[in-house]
Amino acid sequence: MELKRKAAVDIRDATAADWPAIWPFFHQIVTALETYAYDPSMTREQAESLWMAPSNSPQARTSVAVDADGTILGSANMYPNRPGPGAHVASASFMVDASARGKGVGRALCQDMIDWAGRECFRSIQFNAVVETNETAVKLWQALGFQIIGTVPEAFHHPTHGYVGLHVMHRPL
Amino acid sequence: MELKRKAAVDIRDATAADWPAIWPFFHQIVTALETYAYDPSMTREQAESLWMAPSNSPQARTSVAVDADGTILGSANMYPNRPGPGAHVASASFMVDASARGKGVGRALCQDMIDWAGRECFRSIQFNAVVETNETAVKLWQALGFQIIGTVPEAFHHPTHGYVGLHVMHRPL
Repeated sequence: MELKRKAAVDIRDATAADWPAIWPFFHQIVTALETYAYDPSMTREQAESLWMAPSNSPQARTSVAVDADGTILGSANMYPNRPGPGAHVASASFMVDASARGKGVGRALCQDMIDWAGRECFRSIQFNAVVETNETAVKLWQALGFQIIGTVPEAFHHPTHGYVGLHVMHRPL
Repeated sequence: MELKRKAAVDIRDATAADWPAIWPFFHQIVTALETYAYDPSMTREQAESLWMAPSNSPQARTSVAVDADGTILGSANMYPNRPGPGAHVASASFMVDASARGKGVGRALCQDMIDWAGRECFRSIQFNAVVETNETAVKLWQALGFQIIGTVPEAFHHPTHGYVGLHVMHRPL
């Protein structure tokens, strides 16, 4: 028998009751200033609005990744990238608790998001600002079918690497 | 003596009193669905909020282009493209009244925006979604020093050209 190398990760829709479990890793990730161009001084309430209701669109959705015990390991949100003539392209953001990295949580969240975008009849997915030094994410998105469309030079100020590029990444559906 | 080929165009900061003169061409441009991925059903009040207060940032600014009589010919807004670690990159949007095109209004608005971004100590300017069939705009931005970083394929649904690309354009400062 083979050892089961990865714990089971399930993805489900988030509910308002999940926010207290998301906020600690959201806050840690945003204040680390390494992967998201978010305002690090945003309040818990502002963050809840941003993450749990990411768009005016009725299509917007927030998901969570949970282990067999129901512990929340990560979260994603997803929405049309633009309104009107751009509403056929989806976008998304992903956060994984530092203590749960390397377990396939980000991959499970992204695969679920790709499936959601297909069900919702989007034509493609665009990530607008992937920090080029976040190599784990870049490689994972590439493994899941995303290509780098271009890199905006020095568009992100990283605390240790300085000014680094932001990739625009894209995946047809 | 040479004829003066172009009417004088002045750029000044917009005030709340300018909105009634901006709304007609804003609405015409947005409902034409050819150049902006905005919701064509947005109300006048929603449009005012979007155009006249484009960001929570204190750096955000809206400008207008006026002729010698003070008639408003076009408008621009400008703001940090992202918060936090992305706040050193500016972005902007531009609209020119159809009756005032070909007079250098867009060029004057953009040159003024570039000057503003320099004064405000941004490091570069990024346009996130330039419709590739809007060739007048693409050529003008290139003439003013912007380069196409990449083109997101079929990201904009044009009423006559169908699915067309959106350029990400960038200019160092």
